[in-house]
Amino acid sequence: MKIGILGAGNVGGTLGTRWARGGHEVVFASRHPEAEEMRELIAKAGPAARAGSIAEAIASSEILALTTPWSAVRDVLTGAGNLAGKILIDATNPLLPRLEGLEVGMSTSGGELVAGWAPGARVVKAFNTVGYNIMADPAFGAARPVMFYCGDGRAAKQTVAQLAGELGFDPQDAGPLKQARVLEPFALLWISLAVQYGFGRDISFQFLRR
Amino acid sequence: MKIGILGAGNVGGTLGTRWARGGHEVVFASRHPEAEEMRELIAKAGPAARAGSIAEAIASSEILALTTPWSAVRDVLTGAGNLAGKILIDATNPLLPRLEGLEVGMSTSGGELVAGWAPGARVVKAFNTVGYNIMADPAFGAARPVMFYCGDGRAAKQTVAQLAGELGFDPQDAGPLKQARVLEPFALLWISLAVQYGFGRDISFQFLRR
Repeated sequence: MKIGILGAGNVGGTLGTRWARGGHEVVFASRHPEAEEMRELIAKAGPAARAGSIAEAIASSEILALTTPWSAVRDVLTGAGNLAGKILIDATNPLLPRLEGLEVGMSTSGGELVAGWAPGARVVKAFNTVGYNIMADPAFGAARPVMFYCGDGRAAKQTVAQLAGELGFDPQDAGPLKQARVLEPFALLWISLAVQYGFGRDISFQFLRR
Repeated sequence: MKIGILGAGNVGGTLGTRWARGGHEVVFASRHPEAEEMRELIAKAGPAARAGSIAEAIASSEILALTTPWSAVRDVLTGAGNLAGKILIDATNPLLPRLEGLEVGMSTSGGELVAGWAPGARVVKAFNTVGYNIMADPAFGAARPVMFYCGDGRAAKQTVAQLAGELGFDPQDAGPLKQARVLEPFALLWISLAVQYGFGRDISFQFLRR
């Protein structure tokens, strides 16, 4: 396939290099195709890769990988000309500065509201990210599903971790209570796959580390 | 430990039963402790479990599991009296009717904005949920990390799935483009664990099915 990489940073550079080595024709889009960094990237990616302007990358590719920082996305796209029919892989995230959240679509969480409604209680968000059938029996062969929890008190979280471990989960501390802003959408991922998009309820996630 | 279950439905019933069988003292809170369903639940959970009013469950427990539907959460908590010092496990999710999203904290996504800015392009959200180091080498021993993608065109998604598979990922279709609303927070889970909460960047998720 012919693949244009819009944004040759860490993500775009990695994907483009691996796809080029895998036999696809890759164009790394750059405002400065002759720059030293780009020459090094092309050398690493091999003969199936080349550098070009954004316009060239778009014109010569049936697939475009959007891998710029979020702040550049709008300008790149609105200046891109006709994209009709192109497959545009959006690999970006609308991150706030200092990774405090997402710029769009996220402002609070049920967990934080709960804490406001339960003054004095040591709130730990947990057991919200898989269905009860998984809580009844978490075993997937030899794999142990993860159970993330978050909260603002260390001792309370240790207690909840123990309770999750006793059920057969791999308990993992996802941080302070405001992390409910990611654990609740994570629950919605499970729910939507299980109920709306055909996977059924016998699904879960194993947390991998190396 | 002494555990009160606020909401003895599927989630609360399952957790309470398993904790009671594991040796903890469990009180299932109910407005109708004498109801037939509750008697069956208690019989299943064994001698370490009993039913009680919400007030009894709270008074006798150091740990409370909040497992009501979201619509009941506010009333249960604001009517709960003094919760100071209690560990409150929030297992709820502020779901919209028909699971269309979350009632709070979620309104759009970068992926949907991208589609609006790229008229005609076949946008697929993908490669946004793990760091580039994982894209460079997805192998975690024998485990293959999942790569979710979403979009509104079947053919474009099949192409992206192939590209993810070639890199060593387990490609999974998460549904239409609006699912970027859950895949972007899923990315934030990865990012926050990797960068803010001490796990480092060599983490990923395996999708489990059975």
